[in-house]
Amino acid sequence: MKLETPPGTRDFLPDEMAKRQEVVDKIRATFELYGFSPAETPAFEYAELLEGKYGEEEKLIYRFEDMGGRKLALRYDLTVPLVRMVAMNQLPIPFKRYCISRVWRFDRPQKGRYREFWQCDVDIVGVESMKADAEIVSCAIDALEAIGLKGFKFKINNRKVLDDILAKIEIPAGKELTVFRALDKLEKQGEKKVRQELEAASVDRIDELLKALNTKDIMGIRKLVGETEGVKELEELLKLLKAYRKSVVIDLGMVRGLDYYTGPIFEVELGSYGSIAGGGRYDRLIGQMSGKESPAVGISLGIERIIEVMREKGLLPENVGVRAYILRADDKSEKVTLQLLQKLRAAGVSAEADLLGRNFSNQMKYANKLGAQKVVIVGQKDLKQGKVTVKDMKTGKQKAVDKDKIMGALK
Amino acid sequence: MKLETPPGTRDFLPDEMAKRQEVVDKIRATFELYGFSPAETPAFEYAELLEGKYGEEEKLIYRFEDMGGRKLALRYDLTVPLVRMVAMNQLPIPFKRYCISRVWRFDRPQKGRYREFWQCDVDIVGVESMKADAEIVSCAIDALEAIGLKGFKFKINNRKVLDDILAKIEIPAGKELTVFRALDKLEKQGEKKVRQELEAASVDRIDELLKALNTKDIMGIRKLVGETEGVKELEELLKLLKAYRKSVVIDLGMVRGLDYYTGPIFEVELGSYGSIAGGGRYDRLIGQMSGKESPAVGISLGIERIIEVMREKGLLPENVGVRAYILRADDKSEKVTLQLLQKLRAAGVSAEADLLGRNFSNQMKYANKLGAQKVVIVGQKDLKQGKVTVKDMKTGKQKAVDKDKIMGALK
Repeated sequence: MKLETPPGTRDFLPDEMAKRQEVVDKIRATFELYGFSPAETPAFEYAELLEGKYGEEEKLIYRFEDMGGRKLALRYDLTVPLVRMVAMNQLPIPFKRYCISRVWRFDRPQKGRYREFWQCDVDIVGVESMKADAEIVSCAIDALEAIGLKGFKFKINNRKVLDDILAKIEIPAGKELTVFRALDKLEKQGEKKVRQELEAASVDRIDELLKALNTKDIMGIRKLVGETEGVKELEELLKLLKAYRKSVVIDLGMVRGLDYYTGPIFEVELGSYGSIAGGGRYDRLIGQMSGKESPAVGISLGIERIIEVMREKGLLPENVGVRAYILRADDKSEKVTLQLLQKLRAAGVSAEADLLGRNFSNQMKYANKLGAQKVVIVGQKDLKQGKVTVKDMKTGKQKAVDKDKIMGALK
Repeated sequence: MKLETPPGTRDFLPDEMAKRQEVVDKIRATFELYGFSPAETPAFEYAELLEGKYGEEEKLIYRFEDMGGRKLALRYDLTVPLVRMVAMNQLPIPFKRYCISRVWRFDRPQKGRYREFWQCDVDIVGVESMKADAEIVSCAIDALEAIGLKGFKFKINNRKVLDDILAKIEIPAGKELTVFRALDKLEKQGEKKVRQELEAASVDRIDELLKALNTKDIMGIRKLVGETEGVKELEELLKLLKAYRKSVVIDLGMVRGLDYYTGPIFEVELGSYGSIAGGGRYDRLIGQMSGKESPAVGISLGIERIIEVMREKGLLPENVGVRAYILRADDKSEKVTLQLLQKLRAAGVSAEADLLGRNFSNQMKYANKLGAQKVVIVGQKDLKQGKVTVKDMKTGKQKAVDKDKIMGALK
């Protein structure tokens, strides 16, 4: 039998998992400060639900057939299942949910690319106003800062503004998605590749297009396309983010590959690490599914990428060991050892004791390896005087304390 | 397009999910007090890994083929993937891990039975001594108490003792699993059904067997089968649990259906709700997989059942709303509203403000619906004196406070 995980999947051993969990807990705490609530959907959906949503990436949908012959697919992201959930239920508006959970893509496994990985999303459903977009942007920035990331660039753009520019340059209606998909490769694959794709799609005035996309401020954009709805949205969002005291930059060349975006789009870039988060407004997706329009906006933090960046930058939290290890100095002290162990745990102090019948010195070595902050040594000699010895593993100092006053010594 | 989740799967909307998460967080905190660390495995495994582990229930394995033709299966439980992970890696001993995550079974969906559900496991690998079993039992009891469950019965038994009894009654070697599987139905399907199955398996002396299984104490068991290894283990575990001050009962009729148990087995029964947790020792499973023997013991809390029981008993936590809602009394106060909102969040106070352009009274209604504890009313009249009004939503009392001293008023 092959002892391995299927291609593109991984185990997370405790050392790694504890770090991931600490990062996720901090992000989750930020989401909750903003009033977002958790919600979950199944790991898989009917395959047809996911179709027509992901543009060129649709080929990566992880399809399978269940034993009843149903055509299903492991969820590709957390957004489309959210949209289905919203379309199926009468939910209070605004609906603010977060979800930190697994998704799957049938991609070619390689370094940093997995078939199973975690996503970390916040979305607001039911709000047309840019206020929702500002909340999303501000929340994402706070979450990234909460885990210690600095120096990232929060880029914003607006699909409506892009449409305005495309109209101005007289790119025929219907070709917008083709152009967006080509432009999406600007950063990763370079201008040459983008030019080739645009030429293949018979787009004229490519120079003019690329120059227009280099405009960096509202004034310049207004000059280019006039006072359009997209420009108003972009301006309003910038004004709100100023009140939030959040710093963002306009990047018209950032288009995001997904087909379903309709207004503001976001991407967070961290120097040479590239994109660590992305999102935008998708006002038509819910209506397409349910027949009842509902605006929505969200962002997905690229938690896998973020954890790798944090590892490289040395930002991952150190694993904290148990607070106390209760060391049984002799076999007669077994019962008191267990009682102290339970006393500590009942008081909210994480604690362990020997399970392997190890001798004194091996127990001490193990306590050290565990990262225990204190070791409580329980031996007959001390116990006769109602005492135990508490050793501080950082300073190495130890002192005898009353067995019943042990909590004080562990502070 | 069908707007539904695939059969046997569910969405968890925020109200429900927040409650689940609070229960899970409490259980997780207990596991961490005991020094267990989190670890995760992929959602699916090679199907052959899961085969031959689950006895009669093997037919419920959720099999599928990936797009590369691999025969995979969504994990049936958290134990077999743990065993694979342990077999594949050099891990420190004792290895104490917890996992609270999804599993899948291709069962017929019905009330309370799902194809996708959560399990909640703690396991200790590498310890032969009953000390590990005692830790597992004590930890499970503390976790159940931490979430407010009372009055449950923690039943213990030992497969070796069952083997001794079967040998005593001269049930032919090789028939043990058949007998265990039949006995496993004692509680759910009654004695008649069990008798039928035992008769079908040509087991003689059924009366004698059922009478023996009614023995409730170590003395009686010792009288029945002598001073065997199983009896010693059972006695040792009871002695340890006494030191832990945990109350358990011997139930020889509780056999657990799984094939892989080798020693102590556990089941927690909560009155008419039936079993809410189960586990045991599986000393041979790791060796079977890796060729290198390693003892292991664990328990799985039936988190889905537990949440249903808690709901019926009214024990599920009330959802806590945001601490503060910042109410914009007029349009001119928008900017200050957002600044206060961010100030509160930065100080760790969860807060929301209007996103929908609602008027004063609709904002107040929404704050109420949100369960906000305080509403901070931001209006031009107050602001001219550097003040805002804080309303306590519980008492209905409100007072003007200095805008810059708002944190004090929210305590």
